[in-house]
Parts: sequence; C-alpha cells; structure tokens
Amino acid sequence: MVHQIAPAPGCALITDSVVAQLYGKQARDSLEQVGFKVTLFVFPAGESSKTTRVVEAAYDVLLTDRLERRSPVVALGGGVVGDLAGFVAATLLRGVPFVQVPTTLLAAVDASVGGKVGVDHAHGKNMVGAFHHPCAVLMDVQTLRTLPKIELQCGLAECVKHAIIRDARLFDFIGANLPAIFARNSDVLVELVAWNVRIKSAIVMADPYEQGVRAVLNLGHTFGHALETLAGYKGLKHGQAVGLGTLAASTMARKRGILDETSHTKIETLLRRIGLLETPPAVDITAVMELMRGDKKVRDGQLRLILPTAIGSAEIISDARPDEIAAALEAIASPLNGGVRR
Amino acid sequence: MVHQIAPAPGCALITDSVVAQLYGKQARDSLEQVGFKVTLFVFPAGESSKTTRVVEAAYDVLLTDRLERRSPVVALGGGVVGDLAGFVAATLLRGVPFVQVPTTLLAAVDASVGGKVGVDHAHGKNMVGAFHHPCAVLMDVQTLRTLPKIELQCGLAECVKHAIIRDARLFDFIGANLPAIFARNSDVLVELVAWNVRIKSAIVMADPYEQGVRAVLNLGHTFGHALETLAGYKGLKHGQAVGLGTLAASTMARKRGILDETSHTKIETLLRRIGLLETPPAVDITAVMELMRGDKKVRDGQLRLILPTAIGSAEIISDARPDEIAAALEAIASPLNGGVRR
Repeated sequence: MVHQIAPAPGCALITDSVVAQLYGKQARDSLEQVGFKVTLFVFPAGESSKTTRVVEAAYDVLLTDRLERRSPVVALGGGVVGDLAGFVAATLLRGVPFVQVPTTLLAAVDASVGGKVGVDHAHGKNMVGAFHHPCAVLMDVQTLRTLPKIELQCGLAECVKHAIIRDARLFDFIGANLPAIFARNSDVLVELVAWNVRIKSAIVMADPYEQGVRAVLNLGHTFGHALETLAGYKGLKHGQAVGLGTLAASTMARKRGILDETSHTKIETLLRRIGLLETPPAVDITAVMELMRGDKKVRDGQLRLILPTAIGSAEIISDARPDEIAAALEAIASPLNGGVRR
Repeated sequence: MVHQIAPAPGCALITDSVVAQLYGKQARDSLEQVGFKVTLFVFPAGESSKTTRVVEAAYDVLLTDRLERRSPVVALGGGVVGDLAGFVAATLLRGVPFVQVPTTLLAAVDASVGGKVGVDHAHGKNMVGAFHHPCAVLMDVQTLRTLPKIELQCGLAECVKHAIIRDARLFDFIGANLPAIFARNSDVLVELVAWNVRIKSAIVMADPYEQGVRAVLNLGHTFGHALETLAGYKGLKHGQAVGLGTLAASTMARKRGILDETSHTKIETLLRRIGLLETPPAVDITAVMELMRGDKKVRDGQLRLILPTAIGSAEIISDARPDEIAAALEAIASPLNGGVRR
C-alpha cells in the first residue's frame, strides 16, 4: 500500500497507546524502509481522547516536524484513531493525504470506509468533524488476534447493522460463523471484512456526503450516540451502544408494525448471541431524548430515525413520536432486554 | 441573497467586535425578518483572534443553540471573520452551509472567494484549515465607507497582486483611480471589486483545491506570511505584509532578469502610492527564511515562489536560492525600500 503513494519527505504515524505497543514499531519500520521520515504521535487509548485538545497536540507535533501538504497521515488503530487522525489530516495545512490502517473489526468494516472524521464535544459525539476520504485502506486480519473479545463484539454490531439494512445472507453468515469469528479464523474474518466493506462502500459511493441514502447506515446510531454521550463515552463502548440502539430501532419498528415479529426476534437473538445485550444501561429516558433532539441528523427540528422493515432492508422515518421513542428506550433498559414484548 | 437559501430553523451570525457595533443589528434584523432564528457569535476584532481557542468558543455557542446541518453560518466582516467562521462552518457537524458577507475590500476581493478557511498556529498563518466554499457571497460597497484607510490600502495590495499576475489593464485602472478609491466613490469601488472577483474566481474555478495554477495567487504571500508571523500577527497587517512580499518577489524577479526594470519600478511606485511601503519592518533575515521553509507551499523540502514576469503575468519557480531570497528581503528591509537598486 505504501508504494501507491508518491515518496514524500515526511509522513505522520498516528496511533494510540495500546496499538503503539503492539504494532507501533512494525508500522514505523515499514514506513521507514520505503523511505519515509516518520513523525510518530501517540495518544492515550480510548474515546475520551477524541477531543480537540488531542487534535491540537497532534498539530503541534506534526507542524514542529514540518509535515508538508503531500505528507500522508497514517492512522494505525481502531475507530478512535481513525476519526482523530482523519480530522487532523483533514484540517492540517487545509488537508493532507490520509491512509487508514485499521486494527479492529469495527474500524475495518465501518470507520475506515466513508470519510467521516472528527472528534467529540460536550454536546455529543462527532459534533466537530469533516468528510476526508482516505487515499488507501490497508487491513491485516492478523491484527484481530490481539483484539479483546469485547472489541470483536463491537465490530460485529456494525456487521449486523449492515446485514439488517442490506443483506439477509450476511445476517445468516454471521449467525452461522460466530464461533469461527470468535476463534479468529482468518478465512472467515477476511470474508466477513470484505463482505461488510463491499456493503458500506457501495452505500457511501452512492452518497459520499450523506445527502440521502447513506443515512441508512445510521441504523441504531441515533439511539446509540445518545446512550454513549450519557455514559460520558466511557461506561459504554460504541459498538455496545450501536447494538442496544439497533435493538431499540428494531423494537420501535416492531411496535409500529413495519417489522414482523420473527425478524425482530432474529435480530434480538443474534445481538444477544454476539454478547451485545449483556449490560443494559441505566437509561434516563428524558436525558436520552433531549440528546437525540441535538443529533446531527435533526432536520427542521424533526428527528430522523432509521428503522428496519425486514432483515435486509430499512427505511428513514421523520415522524417519530416522543412516546414511541420512550417506549423503545424503556424496552432496552429492562434488565432482561425483554421489555419489547411487554 | 438570503432568499436563495431554503428557510432553516436556525442560522449563525459570526462577526467581530468592531463590525458587530457597525452592522451587527442590521444584519441580525435582516436575517430575522426572513424567518431565521439567529445565534450571534461575536469575538474580539483582530488577527490574534484567529485561533482554535476562538473556534472552540464558537462551537460551544452554536451547539448550545442546537444549530443543525442545514443551518447556515453567515460571516459578517473582514478576512479574519470569514476565515474563522468558514472554518467553523467547515467542521461543525462535518460541515454546514456558509455565507460570506465581506465588509472590507480585502475580504471582498480575496478571502470571500476561493473557499480557503482556517486559523493560525504558532508555527504559521492558516496552518489549520480546510477548503469550504461559500454558497453565497454578498458585498455592499457602502460598508467600505466605515473602513479605516489602512484597511482599504491592505485590500488594494491584493488588487495589485491580481493585476500583476493576470491583468495589466486592472493595474492601470488602480493607478488612475486611486484618489476615487480613497474617496470611497461607489461606482469605482463596484468596478474594482467586480473586476478583482472575476480574476480571482476564474483562477479558483480552474483549480478549486490548489493543485496547480491557483498557486499564482500566492504572489507576495510566502514572503508576506513569514513577515506577519515574525510580527506576531500584530505589528504588520496582512495587506501590508503582502505589499512588502510583492515588492520582495518583484525585486527577486528583477535580479533574476525575468522581470524588466520598468515593470519593477511601476510595481514599486504603485505600492508606494497606495501607501503600502511606509513602514518597512525590521527584518531578521535568518528567522524569515526559517519560517518560509515551513510554508504550506513547500514540496519535497523545496520552497516554491511566485515571481512576476511582467505586469499581467507571473510564474511559479521552485529553484529559489537562499542567497537571492536573502537579497530580496534585504531590499524591502531598507528604510527607503530602495535597496533593490543597490
């Protein structure tokens, strides 16, 4: 991949403290071997680092080393690294080339494709950001061997989302191969990643700047982001929040009568088998709803939500009533996550 | 202009403390009259406000008021306001619509056209930024009546730059109409602004993201930015720095033999008549050259400079020698600015 980029005098390698220990030296050596002068920027792992303060620190380091407009920024790590490094690449010197090297399933199947970069704000996740598409994405599924199981589960939340909105066959593939995925079977992981990237990139290419159809990728995310924000980006991982949010959306779709009971049960069952429904959050419904009103996807004061209509299809609705949102939240907040059938 | 934008629930009006006093109420009333809920953000006037800290403050105010993705950010003011508000618009919620309402000649003929937005950094001007083109630009030359003369002079520095790189007739127009311009003659100002915007927009449209030809617009700016940075963005105004930088470029071109003596003298004479050469800076040549090496336009470690080859044309050179840069700087640092002929 590195050979696809014209040789440049400098290159920034941005990663977090955990990934730096595992793959930092290897990545740095690879870049140096092909002639790059590498500027390394490492920040403390975790969503709580996705702030403008850390972005500022990166500007300082990269500008001190005189990174140039053609010097690529390489993001080595998960979604947080990609989002933050991508925002640095988008805004340093009005934009420099950006290369994604995802080391988590979540980043590989979701964050690294689509150009969404940014950081969080007290008012919500990714409130500050840009669209900055990578010029290359390189994924080595071997890096998933060092990935904690919870991170694999989080990546699967996005895979399930892709399956629900576009591809029932992928939904079945995930269900059938769950043990192999957790055993880090390389062949299965390669197929899983490639399949998901195909779905995501097809949607993104049809709508690169999220003017329309791309919104379906937000299934589970409007609920999920509000839950994450309330948890202070710490108590709840993004993938867990998306899993819970997907269940909330499925619940709401079922209650509206636009999703059949069998499909809803299959969705809940797969999310539960993956292990995404094990820690239902203590939901302050009023606070979540207030946060959802501030979501980026609000238009003319009206919240837009993505609801599944079958396994393999979803639609965008803009007439969500507060009472049905509250009911869906109540369902996922139940200790048994069984409230949907009450 | 406002009617060209679809009605939105909210709109941000960003301006500085000086312009807010002069035109803040009028602008706010106009926006409210057509149905916008206006969120006003005012920051202290001056280049020293063009920082990520002020951008952060704007995020806070705009997100607190729940600005949405379709809510426009309106920049009312000069180049600093446009650059800062544009960067906020580029990065808030991954980009919201942006409207420029320039109130200075400099902003009208330069900053408001071209999509360059951003803020300064200790390492240099506009080191953090993006490309975010406005969806509309509205200029009322009446606002130039309240503009201090020095600001008019600064705007003329960019007009002279446009004339040197593209249009000898504009060069003569400026020379012939200088008294009318300083008298704020509306007809002359309208012609001046329109003429310059035509030149700038033609260059920008040919190269929206500064991949090639657009670089000619940087005539005088590589020298100028370094001088400004050394002055701490305070002692020297951008237009003054560009005026001095243009003289440095002209001097270097003359010394190389790619610009004739008559043209060089005409350039120096017009810059002097405008009043741009009255305060030659105390130039620390070593420090300026160090800063120029860190310029955004450095490629493969090689500084690229724009040099005039005639009044009406310029070229990009990438083989500048340190000694000739130093000689050009020495010339503009002379108390009489006459060093070019020594």
